[in-house]
Amino acid sequence: MTDKETMAELDRLRASIDNFDAALVHILAERFRRTREVGLLKARHGMPALDAAREAAQAERLRGLAGEAGLDPAFVEEFFRLVVEEVRRNHRAIAEGNAPAESRDETA
Amino acid sequence: MTDKETMAELDRLRASIDNFDAALVHILAERFRRTREVGLLKARHGMPALDAAREAAQAERLRGLAGEAGLDPAFVEEFFRLVVEEVRRNHRAIAEGNAPAESRDETA
Repeated sequence: MTDKETMAELDRLRASIDNFDAALVHILAERFRRTREVGLLKARHGMPALDAAREAAQAERLRGLAGEAGLDPAFVEEFFRLVVEEVRRNHRAIAEGNAPAESRDETA
Repeated sequence: MTDKETMAELDRLRASIDNFDAALVHILAERFRRTREVGLLKARHGMPALDAAREAAQAERLRGLAGEAGLDPAFVEEFFRLVVEEVRRNHRAIAEGNAPAESRDETA
């Protein structure tokens, strides 16, 4: 492979990586829209914001999916921890009536 | 909404969240397949495993995508940090000849 071919191959791979990143960001945004709806539903019905059993079931399922997909389970665990932290932060804000504007709009 | 309707709505939202999680795991797996190819390409051509300019450009682009998608930029930053850490770990393993079996197979 010449240097030019190598750089072309690198660019090709990076373009795919950039596409996957855009997909990840948009799926994450949609996922958080759903958890926000969950937070609003729970707040409206006085249900506890956290559900340890649900979180444990999700973590277990993700470990399985990671295995199937050939992903490092430690990475997926860390990723899920990050997502759950963000969800908890959002749920608390909703429960305390400090939800971001978008969430408040959804109750209208 | 009755309790039964509330639980049905919760289940409906959670089913979507589970679908998004499966999508995220599989896209992440595919993304890491591409970064693994980048790592192998770089190792083969004696290119440095890290590229600070590329990482900075990616972080900047992700901030823009996060804004468009209505995602917390701090969350996306933390998420990207996690992904880059995993990529660096994989690239180092490849450079040191300790890549996992799948990566080694790809050089064959």
